Order: sequence, then C-alpha cells, then structure tokens
Amino acid sequence: MKNNSQWPVLLLDETRVRKNVRRMVAKAKASGCHLRPHFKTHQSTQIGEWLRQEGVTSITVSSIRMAEYFADAGWTDILIAIPANILLVDAMKELSHRLDRLILLADHPDTLKALDGKVKADVVIEVDTGSQRTGVPFENIEGAKKLYQQLEDAISLSFTGFYSHAGHTYKSRGSEAVLETGGLALQRITDLRDAVDSSADIYFGDTPFASCATTLDKVNVMTPGNFVFYDAMQLEIGSCGVEDVAVCLVSPVISLHPERNELAIHGGGVHLAKDTLDDNSFGPIVTIESEGWSDPLPGYKVRTISQEHGIVSVPDGEMNKWKVGDVVGILPVHSCMTAEAMAAYRTLNNQHVGHFKKEKPA
Amino acid sequence: MKNNSQWPVLLLDETRVRKNVRRMVAKAKASGCHLRPHFKTHQSTQIGEWLRQEGVTSITVSSIRMAEYFADAGWTDILIAIPANILLVDAMKELSHRLDRLILLADHPDTLKALDGKVKADVVIEVDTGSQRTGVPFENIEGAKKLYQQLEDAISLSFTGFYSHAGHTYKSRGSEAVLETGGLALQRITDLRDAVDSSADIYFGDTPFASCATTLDKVNVMTPGNFVFYDAMQLEIGSCGVEDVAVCLVSPVISLHPERNELAIHGGGVHLAKDTLDDNSFGPIVTIESEGWSDPLPGYKVRTISQEHGIVSVPDGEMNKWKVGDVVGILPVHSCMTAEAMAAYRTLNNQHVGHFKKEKPA
Repeated sequence: MKNNSQWPVLLLDETRVRKNVRRMVAKAKASGCHLRPHFKTHQSTQIGEWLRQEGVTSITVSSIRMAEYFADAGWTDILIAIPANILLVDAMKELSHRLDRLILLADHPDTLKALDGKVKADVVIEVDTGSQRTGVPFENIEGAKKLYQQLEDAISLSFTGFYSHAGHTYKSRGSEAVLETGGLALQRITDLRDAVDSSADIYFGDTPFASCATTLDKVNVMTPGNFVFYDAMQLEIGSCGVEDVAVCLVSPVISLHPERNELAIHGGGVHLAKDTLDDNSFGPIVTIESEGWSDPLPGYKVRTISQEHGIVSVPDGEMNKWKVGDVVGILPVHSCMTAEAMAAYRTLNNQHVGHFKKEKPA
Repeated sequence: MKNNSQWPVLLLDETRVRKNVRRMVAKAKASGCHLRPHFKTHQSTQIGEWLRQEGVTSITVSSIRMAEYFADAGWTDILIAIPANILLVDAMKELSHRLDRLILLADHPDTLKALDGKVKADVVIEVDTGSQRTGVPFENIEGAKKLYQQLEDAISLSFTGFYSHAGHTYKSRGSEAVLETGGLALQRITDLRDAVDSSADIYFGDTPFASCATTLDKVNVMTPGNFVFYDAMQLEIGSCGVEDVAVCLVSPVISLHPERNELAIHGGGVHLAKDTLDDNSFGPIVTIESEGWSDPLPGYKVRTISQEHGIVSVPDGEMNKWKVGDVVGILPVHSCMTAEAMAAYRTLNNQHVGHFKKEKPA
C-alpha cells in the first residue's frame, strides 16, 4: 500500500462483494422474489459487471444521470427510485427510447400528468410505510387509488406495482427490531396493495430488512443497495458481520498527539462523508494487512473530522504502537456516501475501479 | 433555470464572490498583513483567477493533489496547510521543483526528519491554539523550540513561521464571541512565537475571525478560505450577512406532502453534504429569482436529507404556494463541503465553472 500516488485510498474487497451479492441472489431465488439491486451504493459499471455475473439483469438507481451512466454500460432495465423530476421530461423520453424497460416512480398526480403522453414508461407508485420521506402515506388508500386510476387511464404510462423504501429500519438495532419494523412496513404496503389491486407487484427491501429476513417470499421485487458493501452502520444495526464489510478507507497518519491519546490522519469529510454512529463517532479503526484488513480495533474510533483531517482516539497505553507515516483503515459509517465522496476504488490487488461521480462528470 | 440538463445545480454569484474577496484584500492591506487565501473552499482554477485579478499572488491548499491542480493553473507560491504526508515525499519533491515557493506544514519531529534532505521547501510549524485538531499545543513551548531548532539545522527545509487554524471559532455565536475566542488563540500563538523567535511570522485567520476583526495588524499572513462564498453556518456564527452568501443549491420540488407541511426535493447528502446548523437542519430555503436568490424564507428549512432526497419544512398556510416542478434554493450550511459534493458551479448567467474534484480525477 505504500506506493500509491495519492491518499487516502478506498480499498475494495472484491471477494467480499461477490460473496455478499451471491448470498442475496440466493435468498431472492429461494424466496421466489426478483432481485433488482440499487446501484446507488457502488455507482460503478465495473462492480455492476460483477453483479451481472451473479445473475442480476435489472437494476435500481437514484437519478436520471445515474440511469444514463448504467445505460451506457449496457443495462437495459432500470428503475429510477426517486419521484420523477418533471423538469427533465426530455431526458426521460430519450432514456426510455434507449432501454427495454424504464420504470419511473411517482407519488403525486401532477407528476403523472406532466409525464403522460410524453414519456413511455412503466411506473411504480411509491408508498410511505413509515419513513416520512416520500410516498403516498400508507393510510391514504384513496390517494393510492386515484394514482392507480390515473395510470390505468394514461396514454404512455403503465402501472407496474407499489414501491416502498422502509428507511426507518435504519433506526432499529438488532435483527429482531429490524424484522419488526420492516415487517410492519411490508404489512402496510401489502394492505394498501390488496385494497387497490391485489395482483400488483410489491417492490421493497432496504438492506437491513433484506439482510435480516430469512425469506422474502412476501416481496415481488427486492431493491436493496448497501448490501454489496455493508458498513459500520449496518454492523451497528445488526444486518451484517464484520467479515461482510467490503470497503475500507486507508488513511495516512500525519501526526501523533500522545498528550491526548490521539492520531491525526489525512482523512476527513471529503473522503468519509459525515455520517455518524450512535456514539457520534465517524467510524471504527482497523489495521491494514496484506490480504485486506483486520476486525475493528477495540477502543479506537474516529472521534471527529473536518474537511481533510481526521482525529483518531487511541486506548490508553497504545500510542507507542503508532508513528507518523503509518496507515490506518477506517470502516465507513455509510459506505454509499464514502464511495460517493471518494469516487474511485482500489482493489486488494491494486486495480483501479471507477465510479459514476468521476466517470460521468458535468 | 428551467433548461438545465441536470439537477440540482450549484448557483454561483460572481459579483458577491468578487465583493467578498475585495473586502478581505482591502482589510489585509489596511492591516499590513499578507493575504494567502485558502483555496480548499472553491477548489476552482477559474474562481482562482478572479482572486488573482483582485491582487492575490499566493495561496493555501489542503492536499498535495490540490496543490498540483493549482500549480497546473500557474500558481507558483503555495502553502499546503495540513501536516505533510511523508508517504508522498516524491510528489512533494516534484512539486517543489515546479514552484517558486512551496510551504509545507509540520507539527512533529519525525515529519521533518523524513522530509529533510529530500524535499526543498519552506516549513511552517503548526500550533494548536485550542482547536485540538493538529499542531503543537500552545503550552508546549519546548516542543515548538525543538521543531524550530530542527529546522534551523535542516539541510533542505527552512523555517518560515508559525501557523494556526483556530477552528474552534466556529463554535462561537456573534462577532463579540468570535473576537474573544479568536483573539485568545492569536494571543496564544503570539506568546509562543515570542518565546521561540520573536521575529517569526504568524500565519493565522479562519474566516470567522478574519471577517469579524476590524484589523489584522497582529497577523503577518492571513489564510481564510470560506469568506469567498460564506454560507448558512457563517450566518449563524455572525461573520457575514445574507447579502454576502455567494452560492446556493437549486433543487427541483419532486413531491408535496401537505399532510405534514413538507416538500420533497431532489437534493440530498450527495449534493449538500451533511453539515448541520444549531437546530440540526440542513439549511435555510430561498426563492430563485432572475438576478440570484431571495433572503431566507422565514419558517422554512431543510428538515432532513438522505443520499438524494431532501425534505423541506413549510410554515402553516404556505403549502398552496408550491407545486411539483417548482425549484427551491438552499443556502449551503458549509459551502466548502457543498462545493466539494457538487464539484461544479453555474454562474447567474448560466456559465459552467469547474472544480478540482471533477477536473483532476484519479
């Protein structure tokens, strides 16, 4: 690791990614559920190919430009899982011509009105099952029915199911709590679906629920993203093990502060992003090894970060293990955001892997 | 604003930037202080030219790669204001050959040991005046003296002053509190300087202190960065007025939630970054106008964000002012981080302005 021309580096364990993907593919298959993974986590055409090799044929993204990026890489069946931005009707129209299947998402009648007759696409109706972000509130059956009817009457749009991202599972701690929260959310979208069109597909599956559930047989289409990498937040939630975390930020130690048991590293908000764990820290510390990285070091954490600096707390009596010019590994708190911030990966055998942010600039 | 091919957009008010720069240049000149602005805020060669036109000749950056980027644009006098990463000795050596003056920063003897004889550079010794990030603690006069002596004895390194970023001024609220905190920090580095070498230069000047102080005559070299843009955090601190904030994120309204008085926008952590204000919100809302944007709308704020979504609180009785397809403006909480996240600007007359992150990818 000492010959890289730049620091920090976002290290990527391909074996772990493939194992994470294989496990989720197998679970979906066993549940009779279609896996349509969310590519906003890795945002990489190359990692996308690894998923394709494991049998993934359709994907989910979070912006039109991200859809364009993956369309350029040969993906032909794409769901854009954010309420459609009607200011970009022309871009959606163009995209729909390039794809076998474009699925848009809507939760408001004016969105459908603006798109209909202009964009040929399938549409999922988003349902808010408790996260209070976007979606028709699950209690609002009448609202869902109206959107459904609007799609039934549409010229260029076709209803294709109900979608929910139960993001509030991220507040659960422990598999049991995740299954309770996620299970209730799934029940809510199922009840709404049954009231509107009992034959309609349910699109569901945030990473905590998709990981903790032993079966997904009540879901038709599963759209988790984070599971390809997992991260320190998923560890805290209880949806993965340390052996599943597939990315690690490697930062050089640039100063030592024995008077307060701290290391300073080049690794800050522009590298890690600023998500935090329950203890308000910015991630556990690991050591970099020839074949990857260690489990988290007990008592170590990134206490605080600024734009480029990170400050690492070291347990009593351990400062003498460190010197300027060493490197530390940090398990990202939220790997999607760290990947976005770094916008490039390095595999364990030192190969560059690209990212949307740098591969499709403005 | 409706014809942009992508959303969100980071709008840049060039007139405000130039006014902010002119004001700081004038203050430095009147104080007999040299202005060496920190370019980590804008990270743009084009905006750098605007500063050059106002008389700026030397700059500060926060990484070697950022220094390389500005060296490519013709800047020849650069301070890298983070403890030097000794794993990149070769890159520093190469850079020193290209520049008239390279200033490195160090706070640890092993850093100087690793650089000496290999890199020809001026060096500032960093002093921690209270922020507890990096730097020799201000009470540690002996430590500072040892580093100073090490530089006096060095072969290829030359001592050029003491540096402190009093980042803890960001916790102050109101000009008086900023001047108290920053003034104490300045006194601390001055006392240390006087104990080691009373003729040495003092490098100082975070944006809150540099903005609130009427004179900087006790500082030799002033290195603020954020003042070119300011932001909602600086408004909260009291170091700028609303008429000084020079960047604004423009996001489309993608859904309405009248049942909870909220708008959903396409604008999340990958656009704004995740810094927060004292009320834990992610920024004030403004309206976009033909000549820029309005003052913050009372009662509006970005309540929460996820990777791509933002949720905007709307005061009672105002939901009927909004429809899907409208746009909102958001004053960034921390403009350095928003600029880094967006990595491109659009001027008020619709010109693209580049950013390091996309212009110098991996």
